[in-house]
Amino acid sequence: MILKSLSLLNYKNFDTKTFEFDATINCLVGNNGVGKTNVLDAIYHLSFGKSYFNPVSSQNIRHDEEFFVVNGEYEKDNKTENIVVSLKKGQKKVIKRNAKAYDKFSDHIGFLPLVIISPADRDLIIEGSDTRRKFIDSVISQNDKSYLNHLINYNKVLAQRNSLLKYFAANRTFNKDTIEVYNEQLNSYGTEIFEKRKAFLKSFVPIFKERYKAISDNNEAIDLVYKSNLFDDDLNTLLHQNINKDKALQYTSVGIHKDDLIFNIDDHPIKKFGSQGQQKSFLIALKLAQFDSIKAENGSNPILLLDDIFDKLDETRVAQIIK
Amino acid sequence: MILKSLSLLNYKNFDTKTFEFDATINCLVGNNGVGKTNVLDAIYHLSFGKSYFNPVSSQNIRHDEEFFVVNGEYEKDNKTENIVVSLKKGQKKVIKRNAKAYDKFSDHIGFLPLVIISPADRDLIIEGSDTRRKFIDSVISQNDKSYLNHLINYNKVLAQRNSLLKYFAANRTFNKDTIEVYNEQLNSYGTEIFEKRKAFLKSFVPIFKERYKAISDNNEAIDLVYKSNLFDDDLNTLLHQNINKDKALQYTSVGIHKDDLIFNIDDHPIKKFGSQGQQKSFLIALKLAQFDSIKAENGSNPILLLDDIFDKLDETRVAQIIK
Repeated sequence: MILKSLSLLNYKNFDTKTFEFDATINCLVGNNGVGKTNVLDAIYHLSFGKSYFNPVSSQNIRHDEEFFVVNGEYEKDNKTENIVVSLKKGQKKVIKRNAKAYDKFSDHIGFLPLVIISPADRDLIIEGSDTRRKFIDSVISQNDKSYLNHLINYNKVLAQRNSLLKYFAANRTFNKDTIEVYNEQLNSYGTEIFEKRKAFLKSFVPIFKERYKAISDNNEAIDLVYKSNLFDDDLNTLLHQNINKDKALQYTSVGIHKDDLIFNIDDHPIKKFGSQGQQKSFLIALKLAQFDSIKAENGSNPILLLDDIFDKLDETRVAQIIK
Repeated sequence: MILKSLSLLNYKNFDTKTFEFDATINCLVGNNGVGKTNVLDAIYHLSFGKSYFNPVSSQNIRHDEEFFVVNGEYEKDNKTENIVVSLKKGQKKVIKRNAKAYDKFSDHIGFLPLVIISPADRDLIIEGSDTRRKFIDSVISQNDKSYLNHLINYNKVLAQRNSLLKYFAANRTFNKDTIEVYNEQLNSYGTEIFEKRKAFLKSFVPIFKERYKAISDNNEAIDLVYKSNLFDDDLNTLLHQNINKDKALQYTSVGIHKDDLIFNIDDHPIKKFGSQGQQKSFLIALKLAQFDSIKAENGSNPILLLDDIFDKLDETRVAQIIK
């Protein structure tokens, strides 16, 4: 799959701008603030329907304008595919494939596989577990449509169960049967997601370690461990065991929405004990392993966006990555 | 003032290590993970008695060791000064000047003026207002001993007032006179701090803008605005006006502990609308202005620590900074 051209209208700092791309490697050079990262983010938009950097969609509209349009021409399986993402202030975002709007954005995810490596990835190390769950979800979703649907359903049921717990607390009441209905649904979706995350990481972690080893010249030992309540017991049992806690907290305290990925360097958290260069190496290895895993699944290269990839790395590591 | 040598014992990744420094510029080169940033942090420790990167002091002790010692030999006003910072697990940190331990760490602040420029500075842009207050406090404190004392006292009284508000709420009681005592003290310390912050920023902001202009070649307009409740009214009045709110919240909702610095680029928040290079330029200008301001006050150069200063910057900006 190849991105042949990109047109931007009122997107971030651009008014109108068109880019033609080469089929292999394209480099963006320019002074600070001209919008190099914004071009990458526009391409990210075409794959995921949202910005990698700014979760507030309307802030991607150029100042004092009312809308933005990002338009990409792709060649995929020998066919031309035209993807347009547009947003008008106060309205819902629209994603169109060959002039036909998607009903559900989730149908588009995975159609244009993409991996981005950016300084913003450091959030994976320094921020909370939701950032790491989003990462693993985004990797699996690009290859597995049913995974994303399970996840959407799980989150819907979770929100309903939490509302119910709040309602019970506010009205000093409780109904076991209603909770049970939600428990069963959470258990069903949650177990599927847990099994898929487990299976995915089983194949992903060795690739990741191989990538890190190559970058670091085998200098330090790193590890990536999947942490989930569901290793202790099945979700149904856990939900039963924790019902009193959940009633007190007024939210659901166990489940795959509490999963995390543990990032270690020489058996200590990389957040606290990794140098800047080691953290950067870790993140690049993570993203390159994502690239490998999508490629293995799809049989073709995803789009790879590299933003400022070599800052903080010593020459040996830069040389290893270029190889 | 010159740092002549530095000895480390069990500090972060070092077991024992001694560095001799030149009087002018010293460069640290080495592969990722060898500890370049840790050397800078050790020097930071000697000036501020704490790490710039890791607020948990005990995590600066080398793995599986019980203590660390950082020892610096300075030449200041033609005298040799020996500063030692040491920490043993489970004990209080000790700072010694020429073998005599300080009673109060705050007496040491400003003795060895220092400015650090590091990728961790990005927290100033992306994190909450407390990060920016800490920055301005650290700049002013290095030149003004009474400022730091006012601040310590203000924070003590604030904690007491908040405890009292919590106590009132828990016991469904209220005593106006006790609150008044705290209000008066907060007003007295708070007004001093407000006036000093205001006066400091009045002279600091033009220096900062000049620095940014030089780095960016006058490419974009930036601004730094001091935001404080105390611009609206005096603190005593504000505390009175907000007493019902404070009772409900169980903490003090107005005062200089709510101050912030607003960072804008072309009239929009730089956090959302500045590119990575623009944000980095902003932070470097901020720190170089800090350097200028300490130098103007002291008549001599503070120690300047530069960590990875040129990543993300285009060639023009790098050239401007080197000038």
